[in-house]
Amino acid sequence: MRYQEMDKQALQAELVRVRAAYDALKGQTLKLNLTRGKPETAQLALSDGLFQTLADGDFTIDGVDARNYGELSGLPACRKLFADILFCDPAEVICGNNASLNLMYDLIAKAYTHGLLHSSRPWSQEKEIKFLCPFPGYDRHFNVSKSFGMALIPVPMSEAGPDMDMVEELIQDPAVKGMWCVPKYSNPDGYVYPLETCERIASMSPAAPDFALMWDNAYCIHTFDGPCEPFPDIIGLCREAGHADMVYEFASTSKVTFAGAGISCMASSVDNIQYVLGLMKFQTIGPNKVNELMHVRFLKDRATTLKHMEKHAAIMKPKFELVCDMLDQKIAPLGVASWHRPKGGYFVSLNALPGTAKRVVALCKDAGVALTAAGATYPGGNDPVDANIRIAPSYPPIAEVQKAMEVFCTCLQMAALEKLLEA
Amino acid sequence: MRYQEMDKQALQAELVRVRAAYDALKGQTLKLNLTRGKPETAQLALSDGLFQTLADGDFTIDGVDARNYGELSGLPACRKLFADILFCDPAEVICGNNASLNLMYDLIAKAYTHGLLHSSRPWSQEKEIKFLCPFPGYDRHFNVSKSFGMALIPVPMSEAGPDMDMVEELIQDPAVKGMWCVPKYSNPDGYVYPLETCERIASMSPAAPDFALMWDNAYCIHTFDGPCEPFPDIIGLCREAGHADMVYEFASTSKVTFAGAGISCMASSVDNIQYVLGLMKFQTIGPNKVNELMHVRFLKDRATTLKHMEKHAAIMKPKFELVCDMLDQKIAPLGVASWHRPKGGYFVSLNALPGTAKRVVALCKDAGVALTAAGATYPGGNDPVDANIRIAPSYPPIAEVQKAMEVFCTCLQMAALEKLLEA
Repeated sequence: MRYQEMDKQALQAELVRVRAAYDALKGQTLKLNLTRGKPETAQLALSDGLFQTLADGDFTIDGVDARNYGELSGLPACRKLFADILFCDPAEVICGNNASLNLMYDLIAKAYTHGLLHSSRPWSQEKEIKFLCPFPGYDRHFNVSKSFGMALIPVPMSEAGPDMDMVEELIQDPAVKGMWCVPKYSNPDGYVYPLETCERIASMSPAAPDFALMWDNAYCIHTFDGPCEPFPDIIGLCREAGHADMVYEFASTSKVTFAGAGISCMASSVDNIQYVLGLMKFQTIGPNKVNELMHVRFLKDRATTLKHMEKHAAIMKPKFELVCDMLDQKIAPLGVASWHRPKGGYFVSLNALPGTAKRVVALCKDAGVALTAAGATYPGGNDPVDANIRIAPSYPPIAEVQKAMEVFCTCLQMAALEKLLEA
Repeated sequence: MRYQEMDKQALQAELVRVRAAYDALKGQTLKLNLTRGKPETAQLALSDGLFQTLADGDFTIDGVDARNYGELSGLPACRKLFADILFCDPAEVICGNNASLNLMYDLIAKAYTHGLLHSSRPWSQEKEIKFLCPFPGYDRHFNVSKSFGMALIPVPMSEAGPDMDMVEELIQDPAVKGMWCVPKYSNPDGYVYPLETCERIASMSPAAPDFALMWDNAYCIHTFDGPCEPFPDIIGLCREAGHADMVYEFASTSKVTFAGAGISCMASSVDNIQYVLGLMKFQTIGPNKVNELMHVRFLKDRATTLKHMEKHAAIMKPKFELVCDMLDQKIAPLGVASWHRPKGGYFVSLNALPGTAKRVVALCKDAGVALTAAGATYPGGNDPVDANIRIAPSYPPIAEVQKAMEVFCTCLQMAALEKLLEA
């Protein structure tokens, strides 16, 4: 029976029952963690073969010794690999080291210190910079913007992507210099932006000539349920819409090979790439090409990489099914939360009863289950309705996910009952 | 006989002879390169064993799986390795990816976007920033400063290091925010700053509270002639002198293991390290720890690393001896150039007759020998006396170094003769 249809007495009786269950779980002194989108050890081991690619002692590719200096934008073969995965052109790709976050941060930093291709001045010389932050979203994106003192403008997300009516209005303000997007398996909702939304985004005409569409394609091939659907080449879409220099796309192998030791890339128009390389040449002589060489030999091309991703899916799918099945069984009938069953990515985003998210996270913590702080998915870390909770089930073994979700469902019920009894 | 003691007729006869030699060399259509401090292939191969350290499939160290996310400042074992090499404390070390240049650039970038620990405001909000550039020096250092629009203030170098009388006067200007130093085997002269100079530098009291002493210890263990002498811990010296937060030291394994795929570090006071980590946490989740793990297992500690450096020395020493011996034999008696015979590092710095460096480089180029552009070792790329030439003999095989030096000595003579006949 749905909690909201129960009378006070029934709610109280249910709370007594749920609290007893909670106390029993608490007595088990658990130590479980659902906080971060980290691959589990078995996923990492899928890529240990990276090192076998060097077994014959050959470090040369296309005439380049990967061990020595050079190649500011990365090995040509590595640019080609990323271009193949992203449906763009190798000339549109700069390869980075082990973190696409680093490339995103550095692009924003360069906008501040030098300006982007179409900036009239460095952003550090502007009075105010605003950035559009679709929510719920990725805390690290928001924190990059915040760390530079930008004003974070929240834009609601739905299955259709960011609220584009609102976006189109906001970008009339020349102080709005960009927007964060995770177009496929959005963090945390797991939504895939429909093609129409991608086209509408590519067609935007922001007042700021140096508007930066930060297109973090972090999960572009990270499907665990069903076939990996192709996605639009946002660089091509922007070019066709006459805004070739508006978009910067990011991707990495952090969740393909090694979370901390993969390779990354930024893709953009050739003019943007040339402009950024003109600044980057003072910063580095080039990325780690030995790591690139291993990746090129191991992942080979899009098709081989997709085959590899199926092995990740086999490990990830049961965990996400377990999480969603438990929510379906234990929570759905009570009507105290909603969520979206994702087909890829690393998260399940759940909306609890308004005003209960912080309480749920605190109850879980007391019972030994760590969750991402409530509100972390909102710009500035503040969820005005205190409802959203991000569940990251990838890292723990499945038995631990099950136990943690038992605790989580119990806490969700308890917080809902407390809230309803307050009213 | 010294050219400057010859009469015009003798000079003319000598020029005819030298020009014939030059034309003969030019006829050989050579393609030789002495431009960059790049290790040769045999040096790179010394470290192919890095990958054997993972042969047993164990990626864990101190309880950390090097493949996964985490450890913003690098593996504890890696911080310890760098601290051991630099005579400092692991808590004073942040590990970076494959290029210490990247760490230097990023520190300056952060000074611009956020300011350093003792800055009253970000450097981007200052009217003017000046940086001291001991010359001859490293073009990439000067270019970092230049790329941020700083005024480059030249300070002459000698065997005693930068002209400290001049430095102590210049730092009274609060717009002077820092200085570039390569304290051991300076680039390009190969000078080692004497202890007294290091102490005097550590005792500086700059007017700018956020003065950044950029201490690029790029060649700290890169001795090829004789035993590797210990060097002062600049961080300790600055602390003892009451200027703990003034210095940022940089080092890497680019010329220990792989030029393009080594590991790097920044070392500084614990307060500076904590401050920088507080900004870095928005930029990255951490460096490539698998590469760190391989390095920690391969290089182990200072003693093992020094043993490894002896193998580099065995390859480097004959090339540097050849260069200096040929200069001693062919050029010294003519009195048209001076140079310092280095015991380590990657360069021989030569001062030709004033007004001839560009001509020498051009003549070499026409004869198929590429040299670093004349003036590159000066702030702004401008050598006011047009005399300094940097010779980098590490990359080509020794037979090519010999041939290239034959061309170089011939061009040096020819340019000197032309100049003397002009007068």
